[in-house]
Amino acid sequence: MSDVLNRLSEVLEARKGADPSTSYVAKLYGKGLDAILKKIGEEATETVMAAKDGDPEKLVYELADLWFHSLVLMADQGLHPDAVLAELDRRFGLSGLTEKAARSE
Amino acid sequence: MSDVLNRLSEVLEARKGADPSTSYVAKLYGKGLDAILKKIGEEATETVMAAKDGDPEKLVYELADLWFHSLVLMADQGLHPDAVLAELDRRFGLSGLTEKAARSE
Amino acid sequence: MSDVLNRLSEVLEARKGADPSTSYVAKLYGKGLDAILKKIGEEATETVMAAKDGDPEKLVYELADLWFHSLVLMADQGLHPDAVLAELDRRFGLSGLTEKAARSE
Amino acid sequence: MSDVLNRLSEVLEARKGADPSTSYVAKLYGKGLDAILKKIGEEATETVMAAKDGDPEKLVYELADLWFHSLVLMADQGLHPDAVLAELDRRFGLSGLTEKAARSE
Repeated sequence: MSDVLNRLSEVLEARKGADPSTSYVAKLYGKGLDAILKKIGEEATETVMAAKDGDPEKLVYELADLWFHSLVLMADQGLHPDAVLAELDRRFGLSGLTEKAARSE
Repeated sequence: MSDVLNRLSEVLEARKGADPSTSYVAKLYGKGLDAILKKIGEEATETVMAAKDGDPEKLVYELADLWFHSLVLMADQGLHPDAVLAELDRRFGLSGLTEKAARSE
Repeated sequence: MSDVLNRLSEVLEARKGADPSTSYVAKLYGKGLDAILKKIGEEATETVMAAKDGDPEKLVYELADLWFHSLVLMADQGLHPDAVLAELDRRFGLSGLTEKAARSE
Repeated sequence: MSDVLNRLSEVLEARKGADPSTSYVAKLYGKGLDAILKKIGEEATETVMAAKDGDPEKLVYELADLWFHSLVLMADQGLHPDAVLAELDRRFGLSGLTEKAARSE
């Protein structure tokens, strides 16, 4: 599963120049940044509601929506998901979790 | 970078039984689901603000916060990030993107 | 202007039993609580974006949307806006602001 | 209750120049717009959670928090709550709801 973010990132990058009528993502790019950000707010709210419902299947679905629109936002802003993963990795290191890796450097 | 989510997931799983005073995450688990969900709402809002500021570094930082708390939520609810990645992969397939892969199976 | 909340509350109350096809609000009630809550999340996000844009007219518009859907939520849950105003008034008192009024009681 | 918004608006206006150490609101103004907007996102999320819990008392409390921070945002941006109420009133009119009132004017 670890390659899904990379592959999805490539797809989202490729659709940036596409005709807005050809796909959901192309339409979203066409609407501009505010439309993408509105989706971030929406999907975060739906994630909260799914968790309150205690429905794991719905929670996975809404988190996938939230991450998907995070990836659309990154592509729109010229960012690769690796930047976010690298930031998470950096925090690991700071919290002592990659201590061993750090020691071997 | 593709292994970061797996490793972070393991760390978050390991901290589930830890004393709340030992780490930020252990404290958050101790406070319960509502505290975690409040963070999802907060970080989504901060992501929106960073994007409006047009500050890529801040945006990466806030998205890392949003994804981090998504992973904490998943661990708290007994879910692995692979479930979200599998859902994203499934959507790829539905939209015709893994058509070739599907045909070769 | 101080009577707008009361009048709007009456209108929203009256529409609770209406056919979902007759108005936006009747349709929203028909969709249920989650649809109303999703709007709260959406309008809060749009309020944040309008404020970041520094556009006062847009900010007023989005705040009106946020308050409107707060009132729909209250009506749906059998609450009157006076309950929220009374809670705000109670906090005033607690913070010493209605000290004089309290003394004269 | 209809005067609460006006009175609260006056209090919030008066505190705009105050020393940040003297009150919660003065501290929030001191932190700036982003800190106020972060509270809007937080309180919207807490409103959603209270509604999902089906706890009317908690819902009133969180809606009061959401409206309070809306009023702080308005004061910070030089707006009076009457602007929002006027926008709500305008929509009434547009939707035919104040038709009768308008006819009798």
